[in-house]
Amino acid sequence: MTPPIITLTTDFGLQDHYTGTMKGVILSRCPGAPIVDITHHIPPFSLYAGAYAISQAAPFFPPGTIHVVVVDPGVGTARKPLLVEFERQFFIAPDNGVLSLRLSHDAAFTAREITNRQLWLPNPSSTFHGRDIFAPSAAALANGSASPQDLGPLLDRIECLPDLEPIETEPGISQGKILSIDHFGNVITNFRSPAATFSLRIGPHHIRDFRQSFGGAPPDLLFAYLGSSGYLEVARNGRSAAQALGVSPGDAVTLHLHDTIGESRKVLP
Amino acid sequence: MTPPIITLTTDFGLQDHYTGTMKGVILSRCPGAPIVDITHHIPPFSLYAGAYAISQAAPFFPPGTIHVVVVDPGVGTARKPLLVEFERQFFIAPDNGVLSLRLSHDAAFTAREITNRQLWLPNPSSTFHGRDIFAPSAAALANGSASPQDLGPLLDRIECLPDLEPIETEPGISQGKILSIDHFGNVITNFRSPAATFSLRIGPHHIRDFRQSFGGAPPDLLFAYLGSSGYLEVARNGRSAAQALGVSPGDAVTLHLHDTIGESRKVLP
Amino acid sequence: MTPPIITLTTDFGLQDHYTGTMKGVILSRCPGAPIVDITHHIPPFSLYAGAYAISQAAPFFPPGTIHVVVVDPGVGTARKPLLVEFERQFFIAPDNGVLSLRLSHDAAFTAREITNRQLWLPNPSSTFHGRDIFAPSAAALANGSASPQDLGPLLDRIECLPDLEPIETEPGISQGKILSIDHFGNVITNFRSPAATFSLRIGPHHIRDFRQSFGGAPPDLLFAYLGSSGYLEVARNGRSAAQALGVSPGDAVTLHLHDTIGESRKVLP
Repeated sequence: MTPPIITLTTDFGLQDHYTGTMKGVILSRCPGAPIVDITHHIPPFSLYAGAYAISQAAPFFPPGTIHVVVVDPGVGTARKPLLVEFERQFFIAPDNGVLSLRLSHDAAFTAREITNRQLWLPNPSSTFHGRDIFAPSAAALANGSASPQDLGPLLDRIECLPDLEPIETEPGISQGKILSIDHFGNVITNFRSPAATFSLRIGPHHIRDFRQSFGGAPPDLLFAYLGSSGYLEVARNGRSAAQALGVSPGDAVTLHLHDTIGESRKVLP
Repeated sequence: MTPPIITLTTDFGLQDHYTGTMKGVILSRCPGAPIVDITHHIPPFSLYAGAYAISQAAPFFPPGTIHVVVVDPGVGTARKPLLVEFERQFFIAPDNGVLSLRLSHDAAFTAREITNRQLWLPNPSSTFHGRDIFAPSAAALANGSASPQDLGPLLDRIECLPDLEPIETEPGISQGKILSIDHFGNVITNFRSPAATFSLRIGPHHIRDFRQSFGGAPPDLLFAYLGSSGYLEVARNGRSAAQALGVSPGDAVTLHLHDTIGESRKVLP
Repeated sequence: MTPPIITLTTDFGLQDHYTGTMKGVILSRCPGAPIVDITHHIPPFSLYAGAYAISQAAPFFPPGTIHVVVVDPGVGTARKPLLVEFERQFFIAPDNGVLSLRLSHDAAFTAREITNRQLWLPNPSSTFHGRDIFAPSAAALANGSASPQDLGPLLDRIECLPDLEPIETEPGISQGKILSIDHFGNVITNFRSPAATFSLRIGPHHIRDFRQSFGGAPPDLLFAYLGSSGYLEVARNGRSAAQALGVSPGDAVTLHLHDTIGESRKVLP
């Protein structure tokens, strides 16, 4: 039987041996496991970026997939290693909120603390739990030698990142944030597409245009569109919107709902 | 039966979830498919760089390989998604010329427009056709559930990039261009190796030395050599030739054929 | 039978087609071979960095793994292509010392010069031996069509990098070096952890603190710890120690053993 897919999402970068070494541990204990890199370029210690990446990728993998997410500023401290079962997939990660965007919907999940040291590498280091704890725990699950309950006991609650969802501060106005800026400079907000017409405020910039796709937009135009992420995104055609806006992940975005005649319900300053 | 290899060549970079998500789509629909990254660091929207990369890599893959090339400045516009069969391999790409360096030789190819939406992801986005159209079409071909004709109808012609081949402007003088600059700063031209002795003009620089390999060349010497690409390349030993020349992909290169006594047939300015 | 794992460690970067092309060669000749990238971001021509990466990763792979290491400033010159058998794994690399950190322990190894051109690609280039010599030699070994002795004759000795191990210059004082600086800015020295208390000198900096892990350390504190590498490393909590120290791989580090009362055996200048 082919082992399930194991995905890796980390902030390790690709310059060192770290991701290759994790794969060696997995393949030593689960020969033939298909390993897929989601990304290893999460900005160091950025839980929001890690949460965003895994929340986007995981739904496109088959049931049984084991997602290993190692963005772990607290490695070596008392933060727990987690196993979460959600929508017929497994997630192995530190208990620091990095899974909370994937889990922030209504469906139920089951969480366990990974405590079974017999499944780990002997003498785990205090700085590379990806190699010593997370990879071998994933391999034990993937090769069928351990069931979820073998990894450790159930947990009542897990850590959650704050401020993941926008907040309506007054009627027609919501405060959100930038979840991610992609390789092309597209700016991904945490707003789902509203039913009414709308505009976005990002710093001094006011984005009033909404497009279906990039093609045909003048290169200097900043416009909003419903991104492949399911969120409202801001782009320029063939250029970096993030650079034009001068923004970073985590920055504030305000959404203004408009009347059907195209005027904002609120007078903008 | 093992599925065929699926390769990926994109300008997505590796910082986002995009390539991992495409792999999730492929492996969900074609479990066990061996996926190989050619590169995801094509400069954004650079059709020439994408054309060069896939033309170099494809010949080294076995028959049946499915090459997915997503460099797609026109995503979401009317440009067609393509399936091309050439020399017993498949190429899936937007119809924007990105395949034309691979196809620029004499052998015949067959091209189809990918129109079968039943093979795509439901509700495809207008900005991530790699995930929603190209990956699932490749998976349908790879898992044997669809034949090429199931993907869509034959096309009479496809787009071609201009100026891929050098042009002889006068006897003994040809105008070419820089196809690519690699990680080491080696400069790859679009000249095949001439039978006669030659020199190259790149901006104010005149490269008269020809070497078989890097070893032994003084570190400041700019020299030409027949690269592993099959093209004339310009290098320095252990240093970046591109930096010394101050050039970028697309820049002009002039090739001068010389008489056997080593003089150019034309007096150089 | 599943082929053995083939790992790749190079200084090719990921922007070009080079690593993808090598994988095409391997998979054409050994279908189904699991290929694992250790890293392709070894700094160009840096033998020490390549030696460090493969020495860290290899022990975590299973017996039979074939490690292909292509950091090859002498490509195309008379330096030999090597096959080394060590601790039930294979290493294919140029004979330039890049394997010497992995081999620097006591166990015996067997080295061969790769001379069997029938296993190579026809008409090998003089600049891309990764594609033309190393990849097909690895594939021939992996698919079982060649045994180690088929690749070429035994060698009496192979090249070794100098200065890999620290040197005790006077009682209680040893001169070492920086082996690597990782993605997080952690500084990896070539000192194993001493039994006594110690401090480290790096340029004008004197590191006196020793920690078990990053958690809880004040962000400005430079501290030493026993890294996952098995070496002493220097870090800051959540920041780059390398930047604070202003150091590069190869720079000198001095280790001072201290008396148990915490004083250095030597008066520091």
